[in-house]
Amino acid sequence: MEWVDGGVTLPQGFRASGVAAGLKKAKKDLALLVSTVPAAAAGVFTTNLVKAAPLMVTAERLQKGAAQALIVNSGNANACTGAEGYADAVAMAGLAAAALKLPEELVLVCSTGVIGQRLPLAKIKAALPAAVAALGEEGRDAAEAILTTDTVVKEAAVRFSLSGHRCAVGGMAKGSGMIHPNMATMLAFLTTDVAVEPGLLRQALKDAVDQSFNMITVDGDSSTNDMVVAMANGCAGNPVISTPGPEYRTFVEALTAVAVALAKKVARDGEGATRLIEVRIKGARTLADARTAARAIAASNLVKAAVFGRDANWGRILCAAGYSGASFNPSAVDIFLGAEQVAQAGAGLPFSEERASKELEKDPVVIAVDFKEGDCAATAWGCDLTYDYVSINASYRT
Amino acid sequence: MEWVDGGVTLPQGFRASGVAAGLKKAKKDLALLVSTVPAAAAGVFTTNLVKAAPLMVTAERLQKGAAQALIVNSGNANACTGAEGYADAVAMAGLAAAALKLPEELVLVCSTGVIGQRLPLAKIKAALPAAVAALGEEGRDAAEAILTTDTVVKEAAVRFSLSGHRCAVGGMAKGSGMIHPNMATMLAFLTTDVAVEPGLLRQALKDAVDQSFNMITVDGDSSTNDMVVAMANGCAGNPVISTPGPEYRTFVEALTAVAVALAKKVARDGEGATRLIEVRIKGARTLADARTAARAIAASNLVKAAVFGRDANWGRILCAAGYSGASFNPSAVDIFLGAEQVAQAGAGLPFSEERASKELEKDPVVIAVDFKEGDCAATAWGCDLTYDYVSINASYRT
Repeated sequence: MEWVDGGVTLPQGFRASGVAAGLKKAKKDLALLVSTVPAAAAGVFTTNLVKAAPLMVTAERLQKGAAQALIVNSGNANACTGAEGYADAVAMAGLAAAALKLPEELVLVCSTGVIGQRLPLAKIKAALPAAVAALGEEGRDAAEAILTTDTVVKEAAVRFSLSGHRCAVGGMAKGSGMIHPNMATMLAFLTTDVAVEPGLLRQALKDAVDQSFNMITVDGDSSTNDMVVAMANGCAGNPVISTPGPEYRTFVEALTAVAVALAKKVARDGEGATRLIEVRIKGARTLADARTAARAIAASNLVKAAVFGRDANWGRILCAAGYSGASFNPSAVDIFLGAEQVAQAGAGLPFSEERASKELEKDPVVIAVDFKEGDCAATAWGCDLTYDYVSINASYRT
Repeated sequence: MEWVDGGVTLPQGFRASGVAAGLKKAKKDLALLVSTVPAAAAGVFTTNLVKAAPLMVTAERLQKGAAQALIVNSGNANACTGAEGYADAVAMAGLAAAALKLPEELVLVCSTGVIGQRLPLAKIKAALPAAVAALGEEGRDAAEAILTTDTVVKEAAVRFSLSGHRCAVGGMAKGSGMIHPNMATMLAFLTTDVAVEPGLLRQALKDAVDQSFNMITVDGDSSTNDMVVAMANGCAGNPVISTPGPEYRTFVEALTAVAVALAKKVARDGEGATRLIEVRIKGARTLADARTAARAIAASNLVKAAVFGRDANWGRILCAAGYSGASFNPSAVDIFLGAEQVAQAGAGLPFSEERASKELEKDPVVIAVDFKEGDCAATAWGCDLTYDYVSINASYRT
């Protein structure tokens, strides 16, 4: 597996574009992603009871396991918009299908932006010809058009081989910029030219998401629009993966690698963040325990604020693991900040405050916790809690 | 029921004191609370897997349902201190028992302060004679001595009648000031002169805590030392309450009122907070749904930051209810900020930004959500998220 520059258009047979439709003031806000042939497709969606209209439309269409194009707008989430919002989402996909001359049921639709406002369909309709004309081999404009208040474009891609065929996985994501009121958060799109059956693509995506997007946290507020979509168009020409054998595992590894890379970019670009926090749990009895504890530590406001202040507050780490719901023996736990061990068997060590504080200045900050009870491990990612987070989220209308 | 000034010593037969033992730099840090006769006693403890040593000692002793005295120190949590910490907690209770000439098993022990450091027992021993000499009818010194970085003393008390006997419930609490590293959080002590069987006292305390201390949130980090203890010494002379009849209900109402008053003081004094947030859910199908949703909204960083910025972000309120785990129909929900309705049937209304912003300037800020599906209601309390919260929790060692 080889890391390469690029995003959703690196795999063969995918084109993308991003244009400004006027939903945001000056920036690109409308993206298209199109495969030359129908692709196997799968999605993972927010568990929030409140689901945005486009998410419902896309989830319904993905039940058949196939898609050929995706239209995404930023600047308006089309969430909490009732029956009219649902009709708008269907209409938006319909406009894209007509412009691309594709069957409607093969077109997926996503929105991200302000909650509770009707989608300006006329602006999207007016911009579609330019978006279709701009479709090309370069994914960066699309990656830019899906952003809201993210500070950087988020792309990742890898190349690998399957049965002698050259394959690729590419992806783009938008993260947790919620400067606008009620901004709806995380979107990620993964493409691959691997030929794989839809059922296995779904399983592969679930595995990849469990290790990546489900292991990041910015502020614990999971949104109404969160969605990850994968499309596999088979253009690499490999024999179709139809069993969970070695080819499947190679594919999952590549998909997971791209998903993890994008997820870390999202966490690192969390609102107001200055540093990525990586929390590694090992020695847990179950994978669920490891994941639960890692996520709770990464999500703790007290841990996040301590990292911002370079304060080696290991008690907050143990405390967060303790209330996470994970099962472990608090008297067995070792804790490390980077290379500096700060606690052993659940009690503090006389560590160097200076070295510990230095570890908390690094980017990423690595917090390692060993439960010393089993063989299961998990890693979660978050970011520090800063004055800017409060400023960004307090000051929209005032 | 009548609200009166006072705290733990308002009920007959309770004396208290608070002195400076030198665990904190200059402030009072050692409190005693003593009943003239053995009292029925009950406790509710943190669900954190990581439990402080004094909490374990107190929980063990409360299994018999009786206590006569309580010793509390601030400045050191005696948490994450291993077997030595447990021995220290037993020794601390033993010192108090000797000084008060009481059986050891009737003395409870609490600590709050820095995690991971051994308790300075010699300082506590040296200060005990002064603490015993200072025991009196005034509870304020004790209420002061249990504080850590709280900005105000937290006391509450009510008077009421049972079978013609004049009764009282009093209480004191310390809240969520965590300026020090790993400060362990919430303690509350409730006293009453009502005669009640230990089993019913336990049930009454659980009911009261479920509506008060279990419904507040400052930052979602539940601590290693959280504990609420109630002592009922029977000095009011009422016939012992031994069945859940009208007298029991009157008692629970008084106990709950004091617990809610203290809990709101704790939330209002949350780190860096400028305003109390009261979240009222009604129309839920179950009490659990109402409580879960109310707590999630009060705990949401995005909601808390929006209140700080007086930004009428109702979408964040609906979003938090949506991920809380509570069951409801998002398309039915009405949302009010104070008197201003901002959403109806799950979608936004054209409301007055100015009036909504004014509602968010009030203290408390009232957020009311109607699920319109059932008869269950619950209220939770929190506080806004401010620059000072980040400052307080980032800047201890640097």
